[in-house]
Amino acid sequence: MRLHDPDHRGFASDNYSGVHPQVLAALAEANEGHQVSYGDDIYTERLQEVFREHFGPQARTYPVINGTGANVVALQAATDRWASVICARTSHLHVDEAGAPEKVGGIKLLTVPHVNGKLTVDNIRAEARGFDDQHRAQPQVVSIAQSTELGTVYNPEEIAEITDFAHANGLRVHMDGSRLANAAAHLGVPLRSLTTDVGVDVLSFGGTKNGLMVGEAVVVLDPELDHGINYLRKITTQLTSKMRFVSAQLLALMESDLWLRNARHANAMASQLHDAVKGRDDVTVSYPVQANAVFVRLPAPVLVQLHEQFHFYDWDEEAGEARWMTTWDTTPEDVAHLADTLAALADR
Amino acid sequence: MRLHDPDHRGFASDNYSGVHPQVLAALAEANEGHQVSYGDDIYTERLQEVFREHFGPQARTYPVINGTGANVVALQAATDRWASVICARTSHLHVDEAGAPEKVGGIKLLTVPHVNGKLTVDNIRAEARGFDDQHRAQPQVVSIAQSTELGTVYNPEEIAEITDFAHANGLRVHMDGSRLANAAAHLGVPLRSLTTDVGVDVLSFGGTKNGLMVGEAVVVLDPELDHGINYLRKITTQLTSKMRFVSAQLLALMESDLWLRNARHANAMASQLHDAVKGRDDVTVSYPVQANAVFVRLPAPVLVQLHEQFHFYDWDEEAGEARWMTTWDTTPEDVAHLADTLAALADR
Amino acid sequence: MRLHDPDHRGFASDNYSGVHPQVLAALAEANEGHQVSYGDDIYTERLQEVFREHFGPQARTYPVINGTGANVVALQAATDRWASVICARTSHLHVDEAGAPEKVGGIKLLTVPHVNGKLTVDNIRAEARGFDDQHRAQPQVVSIAQSTELGTVYNPEEIAEITDFAHANGLRVHMDGSRLANAAAHLGVPLRSLTTDVGVDVLSFGGTKNGLMVGEAVVVLDPELDHGINYLRKITTQLTSKMRFVSAQLLALMESDLWLRNARHANAMASQLHDAVKGRDDVTVSYPVQANAVFVRLPAPVLVQLHEQFHFYDWDEEAGEARWMTTWDTTPEDVAHLADTLAALADR
Amino acid sequence: MRLHDPDHRGFASDNYSGVHPQVLAALAEANEGHQVSYGDDIYTERLQEVFREHFGPQARTYPVINGTGANVVALQAATDRWASVICARTSHLHVDEAGAPEKVGGIKLLTVPHVNGKLTVDNIRAEARGFDDQHRAQPQVVSIAQSTELGTVYNPEEIAEITDFAHANGLRVHMDGSRLANAAAHLGVPLRSLTTDVGVDVLSFGGTKNGLMVGEAVVVLDPELDHGINYLRKITTQLTSKMRFVSAQLLALMESDLWLRNARHANAMASQLHDAVKGRDDVTVSYPVQANAVFVRLPAPVLVQLHEQFHFYDWDEEAGEARWMTTWDTTPEDVAHLADTLAALADR
Repeated sequence: MRLHDPDHRGFASDNYSGVHPQVLAALAEANEGHQVSYGDDIYTERLQEVFREHFGPQARTYPVINGTGANVVALQAATDRWASVICARTSHLHVDEAGAPEKVGGIKLLTVPHVNGKLTVDNIRAEARGFDDQHRAQPQVVSIAQSTELGTVYNPEEIAEITDFAHANGLRVHMDGSRLANAAAHLGVPLRSLTTDVGVDVLSFGGTKNGLMVGEAVVVLDPELDHGINYLRKITTQLTSKMRFVSAQLLALMESDLWLRNARHANAMASQLHDAVKGRDDVTVSYPVQANAVFVRLPAPVLVQLHEQFHFYDWDEEAGEARWMTTWDTTPEDVAHLADTLAALADR
Repeated sequence: MRLHDPDHRGFASDNYSGVHPQVLAALAEANEGHQVSYGDDIYTERLQEVFREHFGPQARTYPVINGTGANVVALQAATDRWASVICARTSHLHVDEAGAPEKVGGIKLLTVPHVNGKLTVDNIRAEARGFDDQHRAQPQVVSIAQSTELGTVYNPEEIAEITDFAHANGLRVHMDGSRLANAAAHLGVPLRSLTTDVGVDVLSFGGTKNGLMVGEAVVVLDPELDHGINYLRKITTQLTSKMRFVSAQLLALMESDLWLRNARHANAMASQLHDAVKGRDDVTVSYPVQANAVFVRLPAPVLVQLHEQFHFYDWDEEAGEARWMTTWDTTPEDVAHLADTLAALADR
Repeated sequence: MRLHDPDHRGFASDNYSGVHPQVLAALAEANEGHQVSYGDDIYTERLQEVFREHFGPQARTYPVINGTGANVVALQAATDRWASVICARTSHLHVDEAGAPEKVGGIKLLTVPHVNGKLTVDNIRAEARGFDDQHRAQPQVVSIAQSTELGTVYNPEEIAEITDFAHANGLRVHMDGSRLANAAAHLGVPLRSLTTDVGVDVLSFGGTKNGLMVGEAVVVLDPELDHGINYLRKITTQLTSKMRFVSAQLLALMESDLWLRNARHANAMASQLHDAVKGRDDVTVSYPVQANAVFVRLPAPVLVQLHEQFHFYDWDEEAGEARWMTTWDTTPEDVAHLADTLAALADR
Repeated sequence: MRLHDPDHRGFASDNYSGVHPQVLAALAEANEGHQVSYGDDIYTERLQEVFREHFGPQARTYPVINGTGANVVALQAATDRWASVICARTSHLHVDEAGAPEKVGGIKLLTVPHVNGKLTVDNIRAEARGFDDQHRAQPQVVSIAQSTELGTVYNPEEIAEITDFAHANGLRVHMDGSRLANAAAHLGVPLRSLTTDVGVDVLSFGGTKNGLMVGEAVVVLDPELDHGINYLRKITTQLTSKMRFVSAQLLALMESDLWLRNARHANAMASQLHDAVKGRDDVTVSYPVQANAVFVRLPAPVLVQLHEQFHFYDWDEEAGEARWMTTWDTTPEDVAHLADTLAALADR
């Protein structure tokens, strides 16, 4: 029994969207009959192959349930008990995980300034110190988000610069790739160009925001880190019993180019929205629009009235900064509606 | 693309089964359009009402993703940081959670002997001591499973005896109800007769084993414990972004009598299997068959040959004890096939 | 058998110093015969009274072993499992505890900028937000150090301003008082003027740096927080079996004015050192000298040569910043020797 | 100022005793002047040599503060995050650490039955299983106490049998040696005969119960486990700033034969007490008296009256079982007094 309006869409989050029809179909296909639970099913087996095609023959893929879980499992896999992880002050890891990395993973975060949401080697360097000092949680990982929390994208050279610095200093690199597909779509490069080929060691790969119902994966790119992850996944409460249904979703996304089409579309909608508002005097675009987010500063009264008609989040209330997220199901009409409404409000 | 044989079913676990067609339909119904993420959607709102109908007006329901998560969240909600939890030595909590309660929840388990998988007040009493002793992790919760890991069922009086003792000693009672529906179906009583009405304080309610794809719930029955659970759920990595799809599954199960039909059917299949084998000289049934599990001891060669044709687990390898689980999709023909094969093997 | 030179003293840390003779005598006094272990001894009982004289009749004192332990116990006492703690980016809590608050206490730290090592309400305000947001570790405590890691001292008004803001926003205030005695000595006020009287809720009180061998205390000033601390102390591995010897040390310090004499002396030595170097062209004093630390920036070659003759730490190697700590046993001759050597080096 | 009666001694615990005069003298010797803090002092350096003489050239010694801390550090050093540890149901680790191993170390305990407080290979085997099962916290360590919580002693062959079994099954062996000296004294063998020479991998070495004020050590016997222990010690809040004073105590104990004299004396007093009561009709000795504990069952009225004159603990209240501990400072007169009083009470 449908309780909601299937035609309602806003700009609050890619998490507000539903499931792509191909993914829903894949769930039905994977249904019926018995399959071994907890990951020994044929869909999870096939998933390994498909992810190896994307990330190289050494990749090992562990389906999990959400991004918090993926991050906590991945970071534990890459650290000793006495580690710290360097990340941006704006990172989801620090800002939006409610302390799960610290509380469940026992991981201390060292937060550093960012440039448009991105880490730089200079900023990382400031915390990549104190090795062998027993009073300091030992820096062992740099964690970057691709695309970033601010909708920006690292190009491969920027990532390589970070991984080179990290590896030269004995650190691993974790990528929070809950929107990796959007970054790859923006750059027009395969997934491995942003990960395996530029030295990323372990990846949290996102599916849910890109059209799945529930499904992410920890992808271990450096085989040295592939140790005990089954246990870490279970302990972190990320092991699904009927895992075939998580893997079937990921397969639907990754076996075809659905991941790319969804991401491209979301990015195109953000770009279209950006184009529609960027010339306006009353709108300041905060960051380069590269993935599926547009951050804008608007006059307070406009913001208030816009909220009456559209779902979206205020990113920085004091500054009057809003975040508009587009998704795989955002339509050009949705974008036009928002832009037109903004124009109408501003012109009053 | 279907990779598996939809006609294959075994007796390994209720987790091997797929999703009930009504549940799959509910997922499609809940799809399309945008809904607020992280639990502020209309399906999760409706779920509150439905669970209140089952568990009473004070019940507060938190959808989560799996049983490990439900248990870790529920136990944290009911304990201080210095607590211990009394449970059966055979409990899933102790045996099959890979230490998640200890490692993520920081909860010490005090394990006690059982009678047919069930706790008794006498056994609980042995560990319900050492209050105010700073060297002892303070007992604060008794955790019972309904039905138990051994397929047995507490009747309401047995539960009440435990909750009375617990409350008189300052302890809370948690129920691991990953198969609560099977217990209720066996006894022919409503869910609240086994929980709210007999003093259970907090419940891990199981859906996945009873026909869902992925979905459980922490149900807080004593409002005093309803404090901070949103945070605990998030930290424990059990918060789903697109929660409408978890709640829609639980709605499909609980809004109609689907939960009961599924559980009754699984129980009936276990009962039928039990009837078919219990008279045999070469079969010893280990425990009363009350829910959807049959534990039997078989001659070693029979066990070996049976494994060649059917998926099931050896519970106690040395003792030659097997566990056969039935599910909502087990057919009478499946049962007959197993029983006939056993007969044929034994008669050789 | 003495292995070290009892006449050697440097400026590295107040932790490098030994035990004040009165404290050593107190240990001998508390020796011989049997006393109940784990805190039920007569010295610990007496300690309660003495600390109540300093901190008010509601104070409850828990002797612990070191500052890391005091902080982890105190912060757990003041927080739920889902909490975060606001502290200065320069705080010992963040910089020098090797992640113990996060890893043992499960506490997320929110670090903010400082002014001369001190928190300000404005800086606290930036992180005192996101209440009721399940994605945010809930800010529940502001932790300030008195004196600060940079040798500066909050006056009572500054503390009151912070506690007022904190309490108005539902936050508790923790004071890391490993050098509280130095602050009180600097200001010439009793200990309660900097704690109880200005709204501090829980205190880590330091003894080791002020002439003890090993001994600190968690002092709970708001009785609402006095819950379960015995257990937290034990779990955090801070419970001493022969506690009489920790309490006897604290008694020796606090029953007379030894705490004040030691702190005053250390402060006076820092002040004297400051006076001796502050006029020099080649010396830049980094922070107001208020307690027992002097931070200076020196020309690189001078720094190198000074290290050859004196133990002290470089605080900021790139900036050429050194930290000189004075202690209860620093002598005027030690200070003069350092100042003269510096002068000689600089004049070359 | 002495607050207690230095002539009062009981039989409650070796923790009730004070500090051996040689140890107090050593503290004074180590005093005055500055020494590097946090373990880089000359006393800690010397301690390494002395412990190598006792435990072999590969031994690496980390002074800590108490037994809980030693155990938590040692067990973390020997385990992955997903480990469990097999120990006796009566072990201090399980019964008296308030859950610190679980809550701070993240270690699940698997408790097994004992024979006179000792583990047997058969009992260990029952839990040394489930390797590679992601649902099971992986058994990685067997922890034995020497002497045991019940005052019994493993001989070298018994330990070797356990370590052989453990190593053959990929497990490490930890020894909780808070009373190792008493075991060695009982058997008349050097410390390494009970540790290094029979395959123990990591040791919690006890000093406090054997005449120190505060001081234990983690001794790593298998160099493979000597990784990150400085960090684990710090995080576990077991790092002392003025470590010279912990090391000086341990040196006083171990550099001469003080450890052996103290332990021999305590054992002799237990033996004398045992001899004095064992023939009585109204006394049942519960366990072999091998170290410094005597467990006896007494008639209830006798027990009550005895408590009026002597400090000791009831081990099993229902069974009327008392535990009498002797220490390095117990006198023959103390023993005679207890035995005589018992006789007088019983003869009434």
